[in-house]
Amino acid sequence: MLGLENNTMREPSVTHNTFVIERSYAATPERIFAFFADPAKKRRWLGGEAEGFAIESFAPNFQVDSFERWAFRFKGGELIKNDVCYQDIVPERRIVFVYTMTFGDKRVSSSQTTVELIPTASGTNLVHTEQGAFFDGVDSAQGREEGTRGLLEQLAKELERAS
Amino acid sequence: MLGLENNTMREPSVTHNTFVIERSYAATPERIFAFFADPAKKRRWLGGEAEGFAIESFAPNFQVDSFERWAFRFKGGELIKNDVCYQDIVPERRIVFVYTMTFGDKRVSSSQTTVELIPTASGTNLVHTEQGAFFDGVDSAQGREEGTRGLLEQLAKELERAS
Repeated sequence: MLGLENNTMREPSVTHNTFVIERSYAATPERIFAFFADPAKKRRWLGGEAEGFAIESFAPNFQVDSFERWAFRFKGGELIKNDVCYQDIVPERRIVFVYTMTFGDKRVSSSQTTVELIPTASGTNLVHTEQGAFFDGVDSAQGREEGTRGLLEQLAKELERAS
Repeated sequence: MLGLENNTMREPSVTHNTFVIERSYAATPERIFAFFADPAKKRRWLGGEAEGFAIESFAPNFQVDSFERWAFRFKGGELIKNDVCYQDIVPERRIVFVYTMTFGDKRVSSSQTTVELIPTASGTNLVHTEQGAFFDGVDSAQGREEGTRGLLEQLAKELERAS
């Protein structure tokens, strides 16, 4: 009986992880929101600086109930797709979206993300909450948080450049 | 300055919550998966028994990257919509989807949900992991977990009825 259990039991194939990053910017919520809403700003922010990444396509669609699709390659490797679906948008205040990553033809992760923009006396507090599901151990939660910190740093540089 | 901070500061408008429910069934993963994949079975399971709920419409679409839409009313009240978007489907094994609830014209919550089906010697362990975001305090995380337990109990009844 124990042998049978061992033969037929399977471990869950998905790991879950939530992280929260807070970042202050010396910019209004309006200016920050534009980097999510404006395709040219967004493309420059998210696709501009990361070394080795090349955007193959970007189909913007910043609307609730709609898909926005990215495809890129890292150092000429297999195609990486990022499909974004927006659940809620409150202009200059809140964006909720899910993004699903695909390596080649294999879906590797999906994350529900909440971005809140909270005005302060000196600018904006951005609160990024990401609720991730990682499939079959291909993608990793740890790298995701690190990568997100990098993107939020990059946003500060973009805001300086544009100001 | 402190007064200015108080006037302009705003609290985050979204609360986040993750819960996990495990439930064993005396049924194969194949039979359980059918209640997610087959529109008639799904409609009977999710819309059949809850007292006071009336389904106004159900547009099934059990495919990755697609929307499946429900609309219903509770005791003749305002229209409640549930928009489901599938992120990953591995037949008889794993389903990852996001569902967004709308009361009238107000989006109130969005939850990324992972359902895993793990075969055992006596049937299946179902592991339901839900990563929720609740907007503006309208919907509640507590009710969601309770409601999900009810649906998983109801699934056991549907499986008995169909066996």
